[in-house]
Amino acid sequence: MKRIFEIDPWKVETHQFNKEDKRLQESMTAIGNDYMGMRGNFEEGYSGDSLQGTYLAGVWFPDKTVVGWWKNGYPKYFGKTPNSPSFLGIGITINGEKLDLAKVKFSDFDLSLDMHQGLLSRSFIYEGKDVKVKFEFERFLHIVQKEAALIRVKMTVLEGKAKIDFDSTLDGTVVNEDSNYDERFWVPMNEDKEARTIQVKTRPNPYEVPQFTVLEKASLRHDGQVITGEVTTEDAKLDEKFSIELNEGETYDLEKDVIVVTSRDVKDEDQLAVANSLMEKLQAKSFEENLADHTAVWQKRWEMSDVEIAGDDAAQQGIRFNILQLFMTYYGEDERLNVGPKGFTGEKYGGATYWDTEAYIVPMYLGITSPSVTKALLQYRHDQLPGAYHNAKEQGLPGALFPMVTFNGIECHNEWEITFEEIHRNADIPHAIAMYTGYTGDDSYVKNEGMDVLVGTARFWAARVHWSKWRNKYVMHGVTGPNEYENNVNNNWFTNTMARWLLRYTLERLPLATKEAQERVNVSEEEKAKWQDIVDKMYLPEDKDLGIFLQQDDFLDKDIRPVSSIEDQRPINQHWSWDKILRSPFIKQADVLQGIYFLNDEYTKEQKEKNFDFYEPLTVHESSLSPCIHSILAAELGKQEKAVELYQRTARLDLDNYNNDTVDGLHITSMSGSWLAIVQGFAGMRYDHDQLKFNPFVPEGWDHYGFKINYRGRLIEVYVDHEGTKITLLKGDDLEVVVKDKKLELKEGETKNA
Amino acid sequence: MKRIFEIDPWKVETHQFNKEDKRLQESMTAIGNDYMGMRGNFEEGYSGDSLQGTYLAGVWFPDKTVVGWWKNGYPKYFGKTPNSPSFLGIGITINGEKLDLAKVKFSDFDLSLDMHQGLLSRSFIYEGKDVKVKFEFERFLHIVQKEAALIRVKMTVLEGKAKIDFDSTLDGTVVNEDSNYDERFWVPMNEDKEARTIQVKTRPNPYEVPQFTVLEKASLRHDGQVITGEVTTEDAKLDEKFSIELNEGETYDLEKDVIVVTSRDVKDEDQLAVANSLMEKLQAKSFEENLADHTAVWQKRWEMSDVEIAGDDAAQQGIRFNILQLFMTYYGEDERLNVGPKGFTGEKYGGATYWDTEAYIVPMYLGITSPSVTKALLQYRHDQLPGAYHNAKEQGLPGALFPMVTFNGIECHNEWEITFEEIHRNADIPHAIAMYTGYTGDDSYVKNEGMDVLVGTARFWAARVHWSKWRNKYVMHGVTGPNEYENNVNNNWFTNTMARWLLRYTLERLPLATKEAQERVNVSEEEKAKWQDIVDKMYLPEDKDLGIFLQQDDFLDKDIRPVSSIEDQRPINQHWSWDKILRSPFIKQADVLQGIYFLNDEYTKEQKEKNFDFYEPLTVHESSLSPCIHSILAAELGKQEKAVELYQRTARLDLDNYNNDTVDGLHITSMSGSWLAIVQGFAGMRYDHDQLKFNPFVPEGWDHYGFKINYRGRLIEVYVDHEGTKITLLKGDDLEVVVKDKKLELKEGETKNA
Repeated sequence: MKRIFEIDPWKVETHQFNKEDKRLQESMTAIGNDYMGMRGNFEEGYSGDSLQGTYLAGVWFPDKTVVGWWKNGYPKYFGKTPNSPSFLGIGITINGEKLDLAKVKFSDFDLSLDMHQGLLSRSFIYEGKDVKVKFEFERFLHIVQKEAALIRVKMTVLEGKAKIDFDSTLDGTVVNEDSNYDERFWVPMNEDKEARTIQVKTRPNPYEVPQFTVLEKASLRHDGQVITGEVTTEDAKLDEKFSIELNEGETYDLEKDVIVVTSRDVKDEDQLAVANSLMEKLQAKSFEENLADHTAVWQKRWEMSDVEIAGDDAAQQGIRFNILQLFMTYYGEDERLNVGPKGFTGEKYGGATYWDTEAYIVPMYLGITSPSVTKALLQYRHDQLPGAYHNAKEQGLPGALFPMVTFNGIECHNEWEITFEEIHRNADIPHAIAMYTGYTGDDSYVKNEGMDVLVGTARFWAARVHWSKWRNKYVMHGVTGPNEYENNVNNNWFTNTMARWLLRYTLERLPLATKEAQERVNVSEEEKAKWQDIVDKMYLPEDKDLGIFLQQDDFLDKDIRPVSSIEDQRPINQHWSWDKILRSPFIKQADVLQGIYFLNDEYTKEQKEKNFDFYEPLTVHESSLSPCIHSILAAELGKQEKAVELYQRTARLDLDNYNNDTVDGLHITSMSGSWLAIVQGFAGMRYDHDQLKFNPFVPEGWDHYGFKINYRGRLIEVYVDHEGTKITLLKGDDLEVVVKDKKLELKEGETKNA
Repeated sequence: MKRIFEIDPWKVETHQFNKEDKRLQESMTAIGNDYMGMRGNFEEGYSGDSLQGTYLAGVWFPDKTVVGWWKNGYPKYFGKTPNSPSFLGIGITINGEKLDLAKVKFSDFDLSLDMHQGLLSRSFIYEGKDVKVKFEFERFLHIVQKEAALIRVKMTVLEGKAKIDFDSTLDGTVVNEDSNYDERFWVPMNEDKEARTIQVKTRPNPYEVPQFTVLEKASLRHDGQVITGEVTTEDAKLDEKFSIELNEGETYDLEKDVIVVTSRDVKDEDQLAVANSLMEKLQAKSFEENLADHTAVWQKRWEMSDVEIAGDDAAQQGIRFNILQLFMTYYGEDERLNVGPKGFTGEKYGGATYWDTEAYIVPMYLGITSPSVTKALLQYRHDQLPGAYHNAKEQGLPGALFPMVTFNGIECHNEWEITFEEIHRNADIPHAIAMYTGYTGDDSYVKNEGMDVLVGTARFWAARVHWSKWRNKYVMHGVTGPNEYENNVNNNWFTNTMARWLLRYTLERLPLATKEAQERVNVSEEEKAKWQDIVDKMYLPEDKDLGIFLQQDDFLDKDIRPVSSIEDQRPINQHWSWDKILRSPFIKQADVLQGIYFLNDEYTKEQKEKNFDFYEPLTVHESSLSPCIHSILAAELGKQEKAVELYQRTARLDLDNYNNDTVDGLHITSMSGSWLAIVQGFAGMRYDHDQLKFNPFVPEGWDHYGFKINYRGRLIEVYVDHEGTKITLLKGDDLEVVVKDKKLELKEGETKNA
């Protein structure tokens, strides 16, 4: 654990600047607007260790995959989000000394992310020879006009005289740290001195992945008026330079307005004109006016989603930081997009889509955004069904196999133990259809497009299992479960369970589907019989003596011992070889428990308890997706202290750098875990069988907490304190809610206590 | 199966030239002299599909390893033999038309490898406009003066007049097909017009692997006299050009003499002088004189090793081709070298050392070369012990882990399922010490250096197993057995068995070791007790009902069915995805049966029979190392027809392109399999407990066969025909030999019948 920002309910702020924490600081101060995002790099540049990163949603590059010995079915490329042309740069030189916090003397450092509105501010006093200048930077990515970034710097001379040279840049010569051979992913197209634009294109590739183009335009304003400097260009680069002189006490402000358009929305040849017009629109308003528009939208988002925690500012800060970062990454406004595990905050996992979305994002977004947002996420997968069929075919199997990692539906990761084997995703992804249907009560999707997804994946599963004469059961070999610290195991309980669930759910829902959907999927009686046979005879490993499900066939053959025996060697993924990890009993993230979480109402309390008590002590939680699931189950089982401990870990995973890897970027997709831990864990929300239920408690040390949810067209407020629970139906039709087994009849505007 | 060369007992010859078979033809006509080697590329160049390859023993390059997500312990590079500067080129243009068999008209094509001496000849008649020229090429790599290559071309004008332009080249701008990003592995150092040399160096690397330098020098002779042309150079390239004019009936011969020196033997700054002096020595003799020297050495090698088969020329050709290719790759004359799976015939497996050497090469070389050759192979591993300790440490384990793939003892392959897991090698490699000791009767090695190897590997194994409370046994998880069509399995019978063998053998031999060795290895009583406990309580999976050992814990849970059910889908590694292969019951190469082969005298005939009958029908033999083991066991079990079928496959694997992959190069390390199949299989040779035994039969269709072996200072000839077996002690002390359970007392010069 490492905490470099201060505790505050609405701010992420620090007064420290340690060079060794620069990357961590950059991750934590990343901002985004669902369209683009950037790490907390410094406008004036920084010559020390740093990960420079600007990312554009939906823009990606297929980087060649190199494998020792190629085998059939291996993906040909590893899809990556290219580090995009940087528009942040405002080089500053004071009396000949380049402003560079790695080198110059400075004081009074402050860096602060305002979580109300995603506004990043930074200030410090530069202490040069015979001169002191206070610098105040602000920046935000416009949530209304998504193509716009606004950056402002104010400087005040506190002592002496300052000649200040500015060099505002657009820079397309950036590279990815995770490129295989330090290649550039971008090739220059053109630079326009007059328009202040650069345009670049992703390198050609042999994989039929479209090349993306990006045009960036910058314009400077001082005191609200456009100003111009001297422009020079080179390939994929533009510099605009000018100088000022300030006397002691004088102040100067400089605003850099940026427009970014890409070939996702605008044809190459139209990008310049569109950028010009967008800039005109942007500059029709002042920085403050634009910020006000931006803040108003954030205000609305918070009204629907804020979680209030009284009595524990660290917990409060954690949940707000997570909601902010999630919403800066994705708010469902572009149905071509999805949620990458690191959002716009780093290169790792490359902005691609994982099963994280369905497993962790969907249940939260169902609660705090409109159902259309979740439906967009479901539709995203439906749109990618052709890719899923392609993936299954590559493995020599029928049906549809959703990818582990993708931008377009085609698998784009290159490790076979993940790509070929971590196939549980192919049930987890369709499981979101069941969650959507169960939560919203809207069965129009499952009856129609949803059926294409269910039947496609059912056909895959029916072929992926095989009949074991030895066991007299259907078995499934060669999989990797959610616990990626075991690879290529046989009969992973979670995978077998979810595959069986998928087949059963598909069989249940198929007769209810629309006629068109039924004709489209065209399932034969023979197929149905086969699926039912698999449902009836699927092998699910368990140990009856211990009363637990077995993570996989050989799990008990391991050297079982608790995580407490290796405390000094954690995180094991940074201390141990991969070989040692694979053979160990230690679990990266919930696996059996993930299944119990997903299919919660199928298991008895005793089953939940025995499995939790067996597996939790073996779990190192080195996936950010793990603590929240454990927290929720712990809460359900009355293990409140454990639930709170694991909530802390999920809520402040990045703020406290629990897994010592936040330098690479934030764990965006797991950020929903803190919301789930509060709502499904502490408040015990369930929505089984068309019945909304709560079973709340207040964590020790908290005074109260409250949140709102959307449920079937209603807006409901839940407030929990030590006296009990208050439920208010803020908006919508009458509803029966169960709180701690007590039925409450809610009417609009009414609050009920329990 | 594809046979493009004709059957002949002493030649590999073809009169066909099909462009689509060019790579296959090149593999089959590769030549080498233990120091260097080359594929059967054409001197005059060839613009069609071809794999150009020249390789220098012991020269390698660490190519960067790219992995999606790096994990601790992963090797940082993949060691590769660089395609070395080509010295073969003699460009030829006739009346303005470039000689290029991909384009020109020609007839009477002949290509022939003389197996007596490794001489490659090629001839054809070029049919140009108004001109016909007969070309006759010959080349060999000098087995006495290893740095020398000799190439000769004769041309005779059959019709018309020919102006012929020659362009003799040295070309260091070559690349590897298996480089990750088409990089060149060589950087130019200098070219010397006067001396006709080029000198190049492998690229710098960040892995502390030394850079190799190579200097190549060429000199032309006509009619025995040195001639010179006009020399031009560019980076890493040299061209020497001249022209002649020939009238109808006239003949011209051109000889290209080449010297290749490397930094393995000669310092960079001395290479030019050394090459000059070696050239002088070479050119002191004519082509014919050099060839005679060369042939004389080959003659001696054949006298010791030839296997004669009467009645089956295909079988005869197969075994001679294999012996020739093996001896062209390695004859134990440079103890720094080893035997790469493709020798000098292709890029794949990169000239590195595998466990193939100990498992397949050692038992053959023990029989047909001096014991010093095998001892050099043992010493090679002893020299690399520091690398083996390094490898174990990288995995977080004590002791020594010999690498799967190496040039210097450090693991240099980059797939974890091989590198970390195919650890059976760590018992197979020390097992060669037992083979050496048992066969030669010389225990000086095992008492001294051998003990370092045994104890180092024993310490690894003792830490790699763990105690399973569940089974009350020592188990071993996360391994890949010899059958690489299963990865990351638990309790692979072969690996557990060989690990137990290693511990047992080490415990047995340790008290007999020299005092110095015992002090060096310093094994405590506690360690010995632990090793003994593992020996006593190692878990070895078996199925008592079926009477078989289980390849791994879950083997019977697979969809077991014979290979005959998938005949139309073979080889499966070219038809199926890796996922499908891993989950299938099909076995790439002997696994349980490999163990029964290695520890042959520990198993009953019934055990051998039941396991053979169970596993053989599941085996696709897609490793070249598989059929020979099955052939030997089939012979032992009296399944003569099966033994012969599998012999054919091992003996003519490349000649008949059984696995459809000989285009990549020859399967050098498995070539010993055909010798083993005859000697250990058909002739049933065993050498258990200081007793040499035979149990011969003559395959159907063969008249007789015969071979010689070295055994404990004696030279013994074995001749088997339908009448029986004749054993002659050609040289050495009296010896008792058992033939078909009958004891024969042999005296020098005597032949005994049985």
